[in-house]
Amino acid sequence: MGEYTAWIISIGNELLIGKTVNTNATWLARKLTLLGYEVRRIIAIPDYEEDEVETFREAIRRGVRVVVSTGGLGPTFDDRTSEYLSRALNRPYVLNDDALRLVVEKFKSRGIELTEPRLKQAKMPLGAKPLPNPVGTAPGIWVKEGNTIIVALPGVPSEMMAIFENYVEPKLRELGPKLHFVERSIEVKGVPEADLAPIIERGMKMSSRIYIKSHPKGHEIGAPYIELHVYASAERREDAERDVDNVVQFLINTIREKGGVVLSG
Amino acid sequence: MGEYTAWIISIGNELLIGKTVNTNATWLARKLTLLGYEVRRIIAIPDYEEDEVETFREAIRRGVRVVVSTGGLGPTFDDRTSEYLSRALNRPYVLNDDALRLVVEKFKSRGIELTEPRLKQAKMPLGAKPLPNPVGTAPGIWVKEGNTIIVALPGVPSEMMAIFENYVEPKLRELGPKLHFVERSIEVKGVPEADLAPIIERGMKMSSRIYIKSHPKGHEIGAPYIELHVYASAERREDAERDVDNVVQFLINTIREKGGVVLSG
Repeated sequence: MGEYTAWIISIGNELLIGKTVNTNATWLARKLTLLGYEVRRIIAIPDYEEDEVETFREAIRRGVRVVVSTGGLGPTFDDRTSEYLSRALNRPYVLNDDALRLVVEKFKSRGIELTEPRLKQAKMPLGAKPLPNPVGTAPGIWVKEGNTIIVALPGVPSEMMAIFENYVEPKLRELGPKLHFVERSIEVKGVPEADLAPIIERGMKMSSRIYIKSHPKGHEIGAPYIELHVYASAERREDAERDVDNVVQFLINTIREKGGVVLSG
Repeated sequence: MGEYTAWIISIGNELLIGKTVNTNATWLARKLTLLGYEVRRIIAIPDYEEDEVETFREAIRRGVRVVVSTGGLGPTFDDRTSEYLSRALNRPYVLNDDALRLVVEKFKSRGIELTEPRLKQAKMPLGAKPLPNPVGTAPGIWVKEGNTIIVALPGVPSEMMAIFENYVEPKLRELGPKLHFVERSIEVKGVPEADLAPIIERGMKMSSRIYIKSHPKGHEIGAPYIELHVYASAERREDAERDVDNVVQFLINTIREKGGVVLSG
């Protein structure tokens, strides 16, 4: 694995019974990719202790650079990500002073009673840093273990996104590779996917930074209609742009020579 | 882990760069849950050999009952799930006679040339059974290893769903537990999630078959608006229905006593 790898761990039974589509993971994957991290796993697990502890430990054991989890930070009895993360790290699960200040402030300013389930949201693995939640009450968690940064975020999308964009993204950009991600899509009609395969292969060989993925939009037989998604990452944005432009131009020319119709580019 | 566990393995870089939302996994998770299987993992991995081989092997090593993968069965150079699955099983990757018949028939009937990439879709691990594809050309794969059934399906949703509903679902129903899954949701306004927690806990204790999950729809502070999703699995549908009805009635009564508004039930 490369130096800047990432895992996304999505916690919650609602994902595993097919009640909720995991849009959080897609949003995070996109963000991490654009920051130059290579997302190698998106793992959805139920909120059981053994599953959470095992999955966090596995990411750390492999030296994944950044692990982002969502879910399990709320006030209810089955929101126990912070506790299980502490166990995964073999660290005490303690009241965090900074987190307590954030949580108390939130509730006091709105005249809401400080109950046990609410105070729980200030408990974290020893040595963790709370990330303020601009939208809800549960702070996010930032904790380092060896070379791995673990970021635990709430599962409510608006809270997850607000914490990530305000407090996680700037730090990960600073710590991450100096890479730029560039992409373009073209749509091809009249050439079956199997006939595009050798053309795609030639395009991929034009640069080691390039990836081309075909997405069938219609059935291969009858009216083949395929999207080609071309993307590149590079330290300098111009390099990625030039690679993508070159490859897209090659694809358009070659497909048109074959009698295909390129719909957009 | 229980007897009827399931993993879903979603293969494709488009998932890991955040280009595609993994709706296939949600659809399959729902189907498997309703068939009485307990989905313990949904894992999205890139289409690299090491990731695919490792993930299939891990599921087999743990004795997961049913593994369903999506993606990587098409004709292009990066569609290599069948080949990597063969490696994971330590079995030869061979042309399957039944699969060849299916593939040849599809193409011949439409007067389409049989190229190498197209014939590749008939290659499978030794001992596997092809699953006819009513919508596209690549057959699905059904293969057993020890106690584990592995089903590999295409990533195109219409093909994945058609193969699953026609050829996988009936078999899994036959092999699965004789369980019924029942669910109901109610919407609660005016009671913060933290105050619902002890009520939910009491509801959960009413039956070992019951699960209650709270989903915040608005922010906890201000106008709390929460969905409670109640579900149960049981060998007899009446048992699951009775449990769900009892618990929903308990929740409605208790929440109304607390001054909360129950919007639907």
